[in-house]
Amino acid sequence: MKLIQSRDNAYYKQLKRLAESGRERKKRGRTLLDGLHLAQAWEAQRGPLSDLVVAESALSGGEIADWLAGRDCTVIGDALMRELGIVDTPSGLLAVVDTPQPAVAPDPDADAVLLDGVQDPGNLGSLLRSAAAAGVGQVLLSAGCAAAWSPKVLRAGQGAHFVLSIHEDRDLADFMDVYRGTTLATTLERATSLYAAQWAGPLAWVFGAEGRGVSPALIERAGLRIRIPMPGAVESLNVGAAAAVCLFEMVRRRLT
Amino acid sequence: MKLIQSRDNAYYKQLKRLAESGRERKKRGRTLLDGLHLAQAWEAQRGPLSDLVVAESALSGGEIADWLAGRDCTVIGDALMRELGIVDTPSGLLAVVDTPQPAVAPDPDADAVLLDGVQDPGNLGSLLRSAAAAGVGQVLLSAGCAAAWSPKVLRAGQGAHFVLSIHEDRDLADFMDVYRGTTLATTLERATSLYAAQWAGPLAWVFGAEGRGVSPALIERAGLRIRIPMPGAVESLNVGAAAAVCLFEMVRRRLT
Repeated sequence: MKLIQSRDNAYYKQLKRLAESGRERKKRGRTLLDGLHLAQAWEAQRGPLSDLVVAESALSGGEIADWLAGRDCTVIGDALMRELGIVDTPSGLLAVVDTPQPAVAPDPDADAVLLDGVQDPGNLGSLLRSAAAAGVGQVLLSAGCAAAWSPKVLRAGQGAHFVLSIHEDRDLADFMDVYRGTTLATTLERATSLYAAQWAGPLAWVFGAEGRGVSPALIERAGLRIRIPMPGAVESLNVGAAAAVCLFEMVRRRLT
Repeated sequence: MKLIQSRDNAYYKQLKRLAESGRERKKRGRTLLDGLHLAQAWEAQRGPLSDLVVAESALSGGEIADWLAGRDCTVIGDALMRELGIVDTPSGLLAVVDTPQPAVAPDPDADAVLLDGVQDPGNLGSLLRSAAAAGVGQVLLSAGCAAAWSPKVLRAGQGAHFVLSIHEDRDLADFMDVYRGTTLATTLERATSLYAAQWAGPLAWVFGAEGRGVSPALIERAGLRIRIPMPGAVESLNVGAAAAVCLFEMVRRRLT
């Protein structure tokens, strides 16, 4: 166990670069997990963590201290931990990990979620969580999406990342062209109600950016254009909410 | 039209206090709408806006400039607008409004959404949007929720606020006790599948805080305990996603 109190420490400076810069995370192939829940979820799926960082005050007792007992870790001052600014409310525990790469290519015969330009980290994390909970195993992201493995998206994903194949920077149109199940895009125009649409076999759901929705080129390619009926006074949903409604309508039909 | 270039201007200082402090917004009974979409949604539901603030650069052309033509407004320098720090990406247009108060008391005979300690502004805004889209007219918030009329929650709500009766700082248990329809709480224990549960008449859905879920006292009071079946490798959803799944299962049954 080593203690770092100085901003000028080389290891701390490296942490800070990883915390602040998506480019640095990409270059190093590393990212940061914040919090005990993510650390435990990682170990359950991916094996032991070796590079742990803890805030001094979190060592004095509580669940992080209990979990760390017998493990090697780097201790940093509370102020230094706050200054990393990774998430709004840092937990006191960080793990530095190699950013996982998908072990296999996208599978054109399996369920998939395709995300077209989803930029809000909270929405992206929630979408990954919904996909994993619904039993979808692969998610493809267009180049315009937020970085899936950023600390904020990891936090919002609550461990969903570790059970998914996440394919970033993908050409979604190319995947739709080779997909052997049904592709579905959510849109308000010329669309079938989610509850009336007929489908069978593997499904690839396309969800679009907040605001502008799914790109016209992808809507054109979709086998089914789907709208969620909204009886209320507003006619749009947050993309994470809309995706959850669609994915769990798939779950409902498969269960019943 | 008046132009403000100085941080020391009294009107700007007032704006900054409103932007930064929930207490100030409460004391003044005023809040801030960011962006053209919210401004238009307000006017569609609540009548003309009178107190408009625009960033200098947004006046030089574009949809904000078009919409402002012929209206009185206060112009502030772009740096001053950024320094208000209301949302991560300010649109360039602000409206100062009186925070609406619900015109009527909570209705124990109508559909309702009850939020127990939902603190994330993005989640809260998304929940309000889902309620409004599903046709639920009233939302009750416990004291532990984020302030519904904060600029961040307004932005995430995308106008849903203006079509809802929003009752803040409520004792949810009291409302559940007098509610004349069915109350439903989402929980993982001793719960019926959302897709197998039987219900009729008005529904009051209780959704809980991120992390700890619905309080035990409210779960005990609920007429139905509901769980969303999750066939995947993770067994939890973001609260906004879970609420959307439940509310649109209600919509689906009523439509079909």
